[in-house]
Amino acid sequence: MYKFAKVQFHSVLILLIALLFSCKPLAQERPVARNTSDTHPKLILTQKGVAAIQSQLGTLPLFDTSLAETKSEVDQEIRLRIEVPVPKDLSGGYTHERHKLNFLMMQKAGRLFQITADKIYANYVKDMLMAYAKLYPTLPVHPQERSYARGKLFWQCLNDANWLVYTSQAYDCIYDWLSKAERDHLEKNLFRPFADYISIENPQFFNRVHNHSTWGNVAVGMIALVMDDAKLLERALHGIKDDKLPEDLKDNDGGLIKKKGQKVGFYGNLDEPFSPDGYYTEGPYYQRYAMYPFLIFAQALQNTKPELKIFEYKDGVLLKAVDALLNLSDADGDFFPINDAQKGMSYFSRELITCVDIAYHYGGEHPELLSIAEKQGRVVLDDTGLSVAAALKDGKVKPFVKRSIELRDGQHGAEGAVGILRSDAMELVFKYAAQGLSHGHYDKLSISVYHEGQEVLQDYGLARYVNIEQKGGGNYLKENTTWAKQTIAHNTLVQNETSHFKGDYDTGSQHHPTRYLFHTDNKDLQVASAIEENAYPGTKMQRTVALIKAQIFENPLVLDMVKVSSANPNSYDLPFYYMGQFLKANFKYEALNTLAPLGTSNGYQHLFKEAVGASDGAMTSFNWMLQDHFYTLTSVTTKGDELLLARIGAHDPEFNMRRDPVFIIRKKDKKEALFVSILETHGAYSPVSELAVDAHSQIKNLEILYDDASYTAIQITDINDQQWMFLMASNTADNEIVHQLLIKGSSVTWKGPFVFNAIK
Amino acid sequence: MYKFAKVQFHSVLILLIALLFSCKPLAQERPVARNTSDTHPKLILTQKGVAAIQSQLGTLPLFDTSLAETKSEVDQEIRLRIEVPVPKDLSGGYTHERHKLNFLMMQKAGRLFQITADKIYANYVKDMLMAYAKLYPTLPVHPQERSYARGKLFWQCLNDANWLVYTSQAYDCIYDWLSKAERDHLEKNLFRPFADYISIENPQFFNRVHNHSTWGNVAVGMIALVMDDAKLLERALHGIKDDKLPEDLKDNDGGLIKKKGQKVGFYGNLDEPFSPDGYYTEGPYYQRYAMYPFLIFAQALQNTKPELKIFEYKDGVLLKAVDALLNLSDADGDFFPINDAQKGMSYFSRELITCVDIAYHYGGEHPELLSIAEKQGRVVLDDTGLSVAAALKDGKVKPFVKRSIELRDGQHGAEGAVGILRSDAMELVFKYAAQGLSHGHYDKLSISVYHEGQEVLQDYGLARYVNIEQKGGGNYLKENTTWAKQTIAHNTLVQNETSHFKGDYDTGSQHHPTRYLFHTDNKDLQVASAIEENAYPGTKMQRTVALIKAQIFENPLVLDMVKVSSANPNSYDLPFYYMGQFLKANFKYEALNTLAPLGTSNGYQHLFKEAVGASDGAMTSFNWMLQDHFYTLTSVTTKGDELLLARIGAHDPEFNMRRDPVFIIRKKDKKEALFVSILETHGAYSPVSELAVDAHSQIKNLEILYDDASYTAIQITDINDQQWMFLMASNTADNEIVHQLLIKGSSVTWKGPFVFNAIK
Repeated sequence: MYKFAKVQFHSVLILLIALLFSCKPLAQERPVARNTSDTHPKLILTQKGVAAIQSQLGTLPLFDTSLAETKSEVDQEIRLRIEVPVPKDLSGGYTHERHKLNFLMMQKAGRLFQITADKIYANYVKDMLMAYAKLYPTLPVHPQERSYARGKLFWQCLNDANWLVYTSQAYDCIYDWLSKAERDHLEKNLFRPFADYISIENPQFFNRVHNHSTWGNVAVGMIALVMDDAKLLERALHGIKDDKLPEDLKDNDGGLIKKKGQKVGFYGNLDEPFSPDGYYTEGPYYQRYAMYPFLIFAQALQNTKPELKIFEYKDGVLLKAVDALLNLSDADGDFFPINDAQKGMSYFSRELITCVDIAYHYGGEHPELLSIAEKQGRVVLDDTGLSVAAALKDGKVKPFVKRSIELRDGQHGAEGAVGILRSDAMELVFKYAAQGLSHGHYDKLSISVYHEGQEVLQDYGLARYVNIEQKGGGNYLKENTTWAKQTIAHNTLVQNETSHFKGDYDTGSQHHPTRYLFHTDNKDLQVASAIEENAYPGTKMQRTVALIKAQIFENPLVLDMVKVSSANPNSYDLPFYYMGQFLKANFKYEALNTLAPLGTSNGYQHLFKEAVGASDGAMTSFNWMLQDHFYTLTSVTTKGDELLLARIGAHDPEFNMRRDPVFIIRKKDKKEALFVSILETHGAYSPVSELAVDAHSQIKNLEILYDDASYTAIQITDINDQQWMFLMASNTADNEIVHQLLIKGSSVTWKGPFVFNAIK
Repeated sequence: MYKFAKVQFHSVLILLIALLFSCKPLAQERPVARNTSDTHPKLILTQKGVAAIQSQLGTLPLFDTSLAETKSEVDQEIRLRIEVPVPKDLSGGYTHERHKLNFLMMQKAGRLFQITADKIYANYVKDMLMAYAKLYPTLPVHPQERSYARGKLFWQCLNDANWLVYTSQAYDCIYDWLSKAERDHLEKNLFRPFADYISIENPQFFNRVHNHSTWGNVAVGMIALVMDDAKLLERALHGIKDDKLPEDLKDNDGGLIKKKGQKVGFYGNLDEPFSPDGYYTEGPYYQRYAMYPFLIFAQALQNTKPELKIFEYKDGVLLKAVDALLNLSDADGDFFPINDAQKGMSYFSRELITCVDIAYHYGGEHPELLSIAEKQGRVVLDDTGLSVAAALKDGKVKPFVKRSIELRDGQHGAEGAVGILRSDAMELVFKYAAQGLSHGHYDKLSISVYHEGQEVLQDYGLARYVNIEQKGGGNYLKENTTWAKQTIAHNTLVQNETSHFKGDYDTGSQHHPTRYLFHTDNKDLQVASAIEENAYPGTKMQRTVALIKAQIFENPLVLDMVKVSSANPNSYDLPFYYMGQFLKANFKYEALNTLAPLGTSNGYQHLFKEAVGASDGAMTSFNWMLQDHFYTLTSVTTKGDELLLARIGAHDPEFNMRRDPVFIIRKKDKKEALFVSILETHGAYSPVSELAVDAHSQIKNLEILYDDASYTAIQITDINDQQWMFLMASNTADNEIVHQLLIKGSSVTWKGPFVFNAIK
């Protein structure tokens, strides 16, 4: 794992200055004064940076490719007529997508103007801005009424803020090229009213701790820096002083808008949602989304207000956040879909290209980041992208090796965590984090498992088709609330068919699980364990997961133990959302020919019951295949445990949900229960050779040898009768304490909270 | 498209002889007489070929890689102990897979011995053969009773035949190295009884026209050639003279075993199932399987009995068959899953590597084949692989461009066809072929559609998990009969919820559809049409499909017209097995919260009805997405047409079926009906950029302007009000006849059976 140095700007600046001397000045049509702090561009591109870029054009392959791609993209748009339509549509609709494309194109054209000095790009930005300056003053609030904070160009202020973050950069690039009269016109009719609308006219959007507000703050801050408006910058950094918002106000996703005494503005959004480990409480999907404004504004502040030392703020949290985000991706670079998250979003996104380039340039030039940039195959057209391209050309790249990592949640790192165990091709994500603001799910202690970047036990993600207009305007669907956020939609324990915290956001936001232990030093035995005592009042749940490498097993085993105890008898469901084709189970089940919903509420109404089985008291084995591999989940069950096969899709009037399957172990009428399972990844199949290798589990038996409030002992027997014992102390996680336990008449002694031993 | 020259062996032989003179002789432990026709190896490897190979070792990258891979594979096996277990298991089980691996390894080891002269390989083959010679005489019939022709090493004679085809090659390679006593021992105790068992002791297996019998014939033929046994060879080539089989005997798949007066043996199997175009009536999956014995035996015959001119037989049908097979694959090389076929089987299979190398070497060295060999990345370790590797090294490769092609079915090419239309990234497979022996499906006039190698409208394929033991021993599942073969499992018309020919094999085998036309000269307007009059007595069905490139449409349109007329009123179902996530329909439907089967038999019992809608008489539009693209099916419907959404999986007690969706248009109580649909492939979506481009159909209206027994006219209107008309004559396919039709008061004149015109 690389470490971020706290201050690294000086050497970069010296390099850039050195480069400056070696480059030829480029003629511009309207030459402007240079080398004073008042000249533009100054936010992202800088005059010095532009000179450095120009001097190296044609010498850095990745930069040149990125430039050529951008040029080709913008040139194609310029050939079409500029279109600034009257806003009308939701996301996915024409006017939405057009305005989105416009700001992306303006930002790129601005950079192309600076780098190539071709005034066609400046004119393109100017003409488009003038069209917006003509349209904007005529606009009422957007006609679509879905949002708690409706925008003017878009249906929500959030997208208006996106527009301003990008457009500010374009304006900065042509600022000096415009006449004062043109600038005054744009600022009076477009930028100032635009900034005011998304801030003082929409405090419920702007004065909040949320990714929406981050975009709002940064939008206002970026345009403030271009216009050099200290008052506006103050609003961006610290929020509106008196927003007069009621304290119980919620947004249209049910998220609380205001907490008493909460710090807001850019600093507020930087303080609270980021943990000291750089984990953003909403999860990686939104962290990715929020990172762009955080980092682009940080870059702008660093260039214009270096005295703020923004990259050092909170112990360098912005740079740590990039590292955290990269570690929150699977082997293919796709982010783990924790909380509301659309699957497939990855570190190939434009936001992450910016993040990686900025983190490299301002974060100590860690060569591991270059390997990500190399995979991305594109750099940002500014000083940071130049650094990356130059370093890659110089062969400085080192592989970015993702290892097991615990990313603590909460402003002070004390609100649980996301723990990721990695071993060979296996990745296990264990979520014992806080609620995660309004995009959080009710899934305390949930897990998901990956093999070679493929989901084996999936997290459903969100119920939304982002920007696909025919699915609810591309916005959140009601099934996101009724299904995706509910506990049963996750690989975690459900009590009495109700969701954690009864699915109540306010309650959920007051609590978080407690980390019990997280040990990854021994690569052959990595263990994480956490406790949740508030999801169901009166019930204590402890989940312990391990990645274990042991003898005959081809791939690391996933050991999963869920221990629950309650004052009252309950029904407990533990679902496993396996991916792939179910092959065979060792228990009897009846497949149903008429399918009815599994329940009536809390997400259960969305599952069709497909088959019902029951344990006869023996170990339960469930085997499936996914692509070219086999998987077996072996679980300890007791006689009478229900074994259910179900599928998502009931009460789905518009076919919004994926028809994915689930295997559920149900223990009824128990005060205490212990779920123990082992997931094996084994063998291979090829439809070309039609050879099936090791299609069967290697486990002959799995049993619980001992279980009380303090200790649990389980025993694994493989098909060659080799045996192992896993012992766990739940009374203390102290590494120095020695435990002794009498198991089946033999005394076993070990030190520390757990041990895994082969039995002679 | 390249053409196969009929005779090309001479130049190759001259080349090989020339090479021979340039090579150094390699020392062998037991030198044997060379340069006489009685010396071995002589079937696949030849002494001249071996010399040529040895002289070029280290100079041909693809050959050297293939050799190194094979060596590494075999060396690894040699390090383990030879295992020849007592037969016990079905496919997927240990003894089955072990014996299979044994014959594959022996064949490879034999070649390695010849090429490297390292006696370790000869000893490996010898030791294993001796173990088999010890075991075989002790074996009863295989204990598994599932097959109509049980083997001894395997549960069916088919696999025993596989063993002998491969093992004969191994034996040939060490023949001269063995002592006469050793050879006598092997032949007496193993090879002769083995050959007799799968032929005269199992005539129901051997004396048949079926891929099983091809393997049987070739197995006997190969060992006959090694042993130089003319009588045995005669049996292989022409079958058993008097097999005493009853004429109504069927196999365990329901396939008829004997037709009266049928020619059997290798020539019988070459004559009947192959059409003059090289199409094998069982479909590409089994053609791939059968091609290996056909071609390997042809190669052996060519080397040992050149006077038979086997590659010229039936106008070069064996070489044409390789070309046909390659054309029966999608853009990724996966075979179209026509009839019983496991998806994912492709031209990367070991059988196709052999086919391509043989077709190149013996078929006129067409450079297009080299591009397939290059993708395969491996060549066979014999003369043919040497030719391919040498040609690739010399840069002779040309791309293999798959174009639209009609592959006629039937021994004389008069029993329908499979028509494949290709345009840009679209591929449409139209099946109007014969029953296809016992692996055939009841799917007259069915279609499937591919885009960029992805299934858009799928053919389900078979219901089987080949060699995956936990699914019915890896063999055919009962759902193959109750579901996969039934008409409703395919994208074709079902009358009154019954299958074509009432699902009766004998009846189906007596009929085939009639090709009406197949026009692909105009790349922008490719049309195929066929007629079926026997599937439902008294009902005539004509399906016309077209790939059309027209203006604003990003990709070629698929036009699909199914015209049906009957003496009596019927219910007609036209299913579309779309792949992907349904997004939106323009009709009202009710999604059901309790799912019941759609019907009770003929496959309908396996579909769960998920939603019911009805046409209000307007055009019906059905929109979905698959991976990164959007698709819309626009259909002409009339008021009252039922629109059903269903999903596979009912009455599936062991979860053998994929839960794939289907959209069904149902027209009830009609004598005549015309189904007209257009499938558009449009736009793009990326979960990384989250941009949705062109997610909506470009079609504003689709209507039938005219329809009678002789003519059909349909009109397409796009969202810009551009209109097109497609006119079709069903009374004659003559290209020279001029048609005139009065449509909405205007007279339209055109020449030939169809026309597609923009309307001014």
